[in-house]
This record gives sequence, C-alpha cells and structure tokens, in this order.
Amino acid sequence: MKHVITISREFGSGGREIGSRLAKRLNIPFYDKEIISLASENSNLSEDFIENHDEMIVQLKNKPYTPFSAIYEIPMSDQVFLEQSRIIRKLAAKEPCVIVGRCADRVLEDSINLFIYARMNKRIERLLTMESEVDSDKMESRIREIDRKRKDYYQYYTGSTWGRAQNYDLCLDSGKIGIKATVDIILSYLEALDS
Amino acid sequence: MKHVITISREFGSGGREIGSRLAKRLNIPFYDKEIISLASENSNLSEDFIENHDEMIVQLKNKPYTPFSAIYEIPMSDQVFLEQSRIIRKLAAKEPCVIVGRCADRVLEDSINLFIYARMNKRIERLLTMESEVDSDKMESRIREIDRKRKDYYQYYTGSTWGRAQNYDLCLDSGKIGIKATVDIILSYLEALDS
Repeated sequence: MKHVITISREFGSGGREIGSRLAKRLNIPFYDKEIISLASENSNLSEDFIENHDEMIVQLKNKPYTPFSAIYEIPMSDQVFLEQSRIIRKLAAKEPCVIVGRCADRVLEDSINLFIYARMNKRIERLLTMESEVDSDKMESRIREIDRKRKDYYQYYTGSTWGRAQNYDLCLDSGKIGIKATVDIILSYLEALDS
Repeated sequence: MKHVITISREFGSGGREIGSRLAKRLNIPFYDKEIISLASENSNLSEDFIENHDEMIVQLKNKPYTPFSAIYEIPMSDQVFLEQSRIIRKLAAKEPCVIVGRCADRVLEDSINLFIYARMNKRIERLLTMESEVDSDKMESRIREIDRKRKDYYQYYTGSTWGRAQNYDLCLDSGKIGIKATVDIILSYLEALDS
C-alpha cells in the first residue's frame, strides 16, 4: 500500500480532500499547496510569486520568443513549473506520499495516478457550502475558468490531454458516491495492486 | 446493485470479459455481439451487413451528401447505428444489464458508464495468448487500428471524445491489477452507489 500517489482533479470535485484523507488512512505525507512553500525555500522565487503562477501559464506580454531569450530568460511560469517539478521528484524519491496537481503524474515515472471529477451540479453544490460565493451561476463560471487553466497548464507542460482516462490508473466520479466511498474505492485499488 | 451498466473499452483491455464476469456476478444479462443479431431480427439489415458496420463508420464513396439523399437514403452506417441504439434502449428499459460498446453510454441516459483500458504492452501480451496472431508488432498495429475506429465512431455519433474520463462514472486500467480485481473494484463502486 506504500506508493507515491498523484491526484489530478476537477475544481470542486473534492480531489484535495480525497487526497488528504487517503494520505491519513495510509499514514503517509500529503502535499498540495505545501509544494509552493518548498519551491520558494529552494529558489529565489517568493511564495507569493509562485502562488500567482501556480498551475497556470502566465504569458509574457510583448516578449517574443527567441533562442536568445530562451537561454537567458526562461519565462517565469516555466521557472515555477521546473522548480515545483524538482520538489515533486525529491519528495517522491524520499518516501511514499500523496501529491495533488502540478502535473505530478507526468513529472514522476512510477506513481499511481488518479483523476477525480464530478458533474457540474455536484461541484457547484459542494463549493457553495464551502466558499463565500452564494451565486451558483458565478460559481459555475469560476469552476469552468479554473478547470480551463488546469487543462491548459497540463497541455502546455505535458503535451497530453488533462482528463484523458488512459493517462491515469484510476478515474472516479466522486459526485455520485461521495468523498468517503471514493477514498474506500481507491484503497481497494491499492490493495489489489499489491496482491 | 441492479443498474444498467455500459462498458467502453480499449481493444485488448479485457473489457468484454470484465463485462461478462460482472453480469454473471450481478446475475443480469450481458450484451455485446448479441446486439447485432437483435438489430438484424428487428430490421431489414442482415447480420453480416450489421457486423461489417459494427462500431465503425463506413463512408459512402462517390455519394455526396445532399438534403435529398439524407431523407431518402440514410447512409448505411447510420442505419446500423440507429437500429442498434433502438435495441440498446429497449434492452435497458426492460431490465438491468451490462452492454458493451456501441456508444451505449451516450445512447442511454441513466446508465452507469465504465471505461476499461490498459497499457499497450499489457494488451499485446493478453491478445497474443488469445488470438492466432503471434507477431507482437502486427498485433500492436491491429490494436491501434481498432482503437482508432472505435474512437472515430464515438466521435462521429456522440460528438464527444472516447476515453474522456468525465464521460464515465469510473475508468480503470485493468492491466496492472488484472481482470478479477477490476471486476471486484467495479462491484465495490456499485455497492457504494446504493449505500
């Protein structure tokens, strides 16, 4: 049951909570935003700066790409991605753990990769009980925007499609069965892997 | 545990066998090629003809699409798809069952939809033990061709992407844990649905 597990997740699907509970059940560390602080400690980039570039591509405006700029001035989003990838590889090499987001499924080679998603109505419902937003239309726009950013980010850095089932070992709609049962199914899968 | 369950599957992933075992464990009917005979019984199309158009788009050559031809001469692939869809809806309305392929996940509205896949090396390995082909390169070409046909067919008739995780309730790589464990995980998922 001791694997490095990565979780990719649609916004509002509960992927983070599922990862956190899974890590607790397996008694292994859990990393999500923690990767930001670690990446900041290990580089000249500030925590705020990394947070603002976290899982999104920030295009440099009025800065055409040239071989010269590629060598001397790696775009900031790329610097954040590379630093986070170094941290992810270091954490995974150290011990079994659960890592959320940041293309960890593609950064690592032998991880067990999960994709968690849910229907839009279930995600709106879940987030409205958790966040200050009360308007479900606005919440839907926000969900779509964050998902689009995650999808673009994954496409840009991995060249593959976010949410393509074959990129993962197990993909689950958490909306119909809920967080607890989703964790249980993942644990059954891990057990089957080891038997 | 009594649901209509659809299974989409990569060629060689064992999706058919998983569906068949699942149906046995749930004591409900299983439909795969059986849909061909049923579609033939219910239409003027022969069993051979339907088999040759099964899960693939056969383009009409030298027959440009016109509104006139659309009304009086529905392309043959479309006739087969429509007849199979009618059968699928009829079977699903009658009783819980397992239906493999033929875009059943999109033809039906309240089915539980599974996608089964596996890494290429696992699929080649599996098929070489089952089929007369002994050359693994040729087997790989055949797998890629059949998958491409299934993908195109799904895209053409549903407008959506075959293997996009969010189209299904549960997606599983059967290669790492094997057929039996995959069936067990699906049964756990169905149990969670009902509890």
